[in-house]
This record gives sequence, structure tokens and C-alpha cells, in this order.
Amino acid sequence: METFTPTARTQLRRRSQRAVYDKAQVHAILDEGFICHVGFVLDGKPHVLPTAYARSGEQIYIHGSPASRLMAAKGELDICLTVTLTDGLVLARSAFHTSINYRSVVVFGKARLVTDLIEKWQALRSFTNHVIAGRWEQVKQPTEQELKATGVLSLPLEEVSAKVRTGPPIDDEEDYSLPVWGGVVPVLQQFGEPAPDGRVLDGIAAPSLSR
Amino acid sequence: METFTPTARTQLRRRSQRAVYDKAQVHAILDEGFICHVGFVLDGKPHVLPTAYARSGEQIYIHGSPASRLMAAKGELDICLTVTLTDGLVLARSAFHTSINYRSVVVFGKARLVTDLIEKWQALRSFTNHVIAGRWEQVKQPTEQELKATGVLSLPLEEVSAKVRTGPPIDDEEDYSLPVWGGVVPVLQQFGEPAPDGRVLDGIAAPSLSR
Repeated sequence: METFTPTARTQLRRRSQRAVYDKAQVHAILDEGFICHVGFVLDGKPHVLPTAYARSGEQIYIHGSPASRLMAAKGELDICLTVTLTDGLVLARSAFHTSINYRSVVVFGKARLVTDLIEKWQALRSFTNHVIAGRWEQVKQPTEQELKATGVLSLPLEEVSAKVRTGPPIDDEEDYSLPVWGGVVPVLQQFGEPAPDGRVLDGIAAPSLSR
Repeated sequence: METFTPTARTQLRRRSQRAVYDKAQVHAILDEGFICHVGFVLDGKPHVLPTAYARSGEQIYIHGSPASRLMAAKGELDICLTVTLTDGLVLARSAFHTSINYRSVVVFGKARLVTDLIEKWQALRSFTNHVIAGRWEQVKQPTEQELKATGVLSLPLEEVSAKVRTGPPIDDEEDYSLPVWGGVVPVLQQFGEPAPDGRVLDGIAAPSLSR
């Protein structure tokens, strides 16, 4: 089993039984999500922004306007990128043991600004195909001008940890006799029926979704 | 309409048509989500952690172990708390205009450590009832020891902005003639069938869910 090596930042200090450093599990979490939260420091203060991402091998790509503060830092900014999948409400018989089932990945590092046009192209393809397989091959691909108008950062999967809670509530033994329902309510992220924008040409079907 | 006043940090610099400062809209986003991402700075580096939250009036409460780095800072830490609801995949006919419909709220500020036991109690009630109305009144409420073993932070809703994208893709006019499907695929967060943990007493029904 290939694993990430814990560092001072990624070594879980509490609830270490929930820690996961297995690369395959980390990759699976990253591949299931598609929105991450990116933290960075400006003027000594924390900033956290949601953005789309895609994994490609041992890197995560994010993108945005080259004018954004994140992109304008040109890869010299330390970032912390977090992906969280919410799996269930864990309803214990006591308020204290009530919890949430989740899988989260935290990646620390410096993100590199992608300047090579080929790598940028491949990164954009990975965004588009991450959620809907094969979509990149159907759509109009970016012009050189559009490519230049897109900032892409690459964050290596090096300093990484995951944290996972699964399973039923763990109540205090005496509380199992209480007349209170205990168990898990699954939280599901699902795709609804595709809604065409009214200008789709005749005979063009909605894409089939990979989840 | 009551609004938040933009500051240097919350004034959207780009895509300002997506900015929302209306308090009612901000409250509605916060009340629909239940997981936030909290950013803070340690040793000059950003950290982003997912955690549950609840709004109570003009405050957001988060909780955790008093030993956690976030709680141990005892409210002297600047934080950035971000809530993101993902509403849809916006499938344009070109890769460049492909987007995501979302609603996000960003709150900056210093979080205050809640030490008053009554306020802590009320905060914990708001967590429990935020997702499942009335659950707090059914479960075993915390003992004084459990209350002391729970750290609660309160973040005022003062420096706040929201960002919202809705609607169909905006393709370049000439791209509407391409044989590519365009529209929105809704992304839905839903609750599944409650799964009892096997020790629920006879005659106790699963809770009814508020969403």
C-alpha cells in the first residue's frame, strides 16, 4: 500500500483513528468531489474560496482568472486545499455523540503557476472531463486567447492527509435504552434531470452523467 | 433591504454582478448548508478544516474539541469561514464558458470563545436542530462535563459577502450553432433512507427530516 508520509501539519493530533494516508483512498476522495476550498494568507489574514478542481496523477489543478489574487501570486503562495464529501448525519441518542460521516482530504503546499500551454490545455481537459467523461471531446476547445485568459495552478500531492468517519453512532452504553432513534441518515449528492437552455439544436441529446 | 457593508476584503473585485450583500439572502444560504470550511493561519501558513456550523441571528457557531488548534486559540485567531452550496453544472458549448452554479458565503472576523454555559447550551441546541428540527428536544442533552468538553466559537456576521451564479450557460453567439448540448445539470444534496443502528427500541420511528 502506497502512503503519504505524515508531517507535523498532516499528523492528526486528535481522533487519529480517523486518519488516512493511503494514496488510493486519498485519490478516490479527490476523484469523487469536484469543488474544493482553497485557503491562502493575504496581509496575514486567512482567505478561503471555493473553486472547481481536478486531479491528474499526483497533482491537483485549479483554475481562475489570471487577475484573481490566488493566480496573481504566481505560485509563490502557500495554500491549503481541502475537499470534503459529506456522507451522513450520525444521529446518536445523546447530543454529545451526534456526529457527521464524512471523508475529507487536506493538501498543503505551494502551488505552481502553469505556464506551458500544453500542460494548461491538459489541465483544462481534466476539469471538463472530471465530472462528465468525454465532455471535452464534444465541446469547442479553447482558443489560444482563451487559454491565455485562464490561470491554472498545479498543487503537488505531497503533504497530504485524509480524515474519514464512517459507521453508526457510538452512544454511551446506558443510552441505548433511551426511547430515541439512533442511526445514520445518508447525505447524497446527486445529479438531477438536465435542463436544456432553449437553444439546443434538434437531435442533440443531453450528456450522460458519470455519477 | 438590510445589507452588509462591503469592506476591502469583501468587495468583489471580479464578476461583481455575482456579489450579494443582502442579509436575507446570506442568511438563507447559511441556513441551507450545514458544513463550512474554516480557514486560519498557523505559523504563517493557511489551514482549512471542514466543520459543522449553525447560524443564530447575526452569529455563526462552530464547535470542536477544546484541544483543537482552532479552539485552543481561544478566539484570538482571525478566521475566514466559507459556506458553499453547489447547485448545478453549467454545460456551455465551449470549454471556456463551462461553469458551475453555486451560492457561497464568506465571513471574515475574529471568533469569540463561548464560555458562558447557557450560551454554549443554546449553541449546541442550534447545531442539533439546524438540520433536523426538534431533534434536540428528543435526545439526551449534554451533562455539565460534556458541555465543558466541547469548545464553541461564535463568529459575528459583520464582514460578510455572498457570491451567486445562477442560470444557463452564456455561450459566444456563434457557438449556439454547434451540435453540442447546452444547459444546466442540477446538483442536488438529498437525504437518503435513514438506516437504524440495530439497537433502536421497538416502536421508535426514524426522525422526519426538514429537507
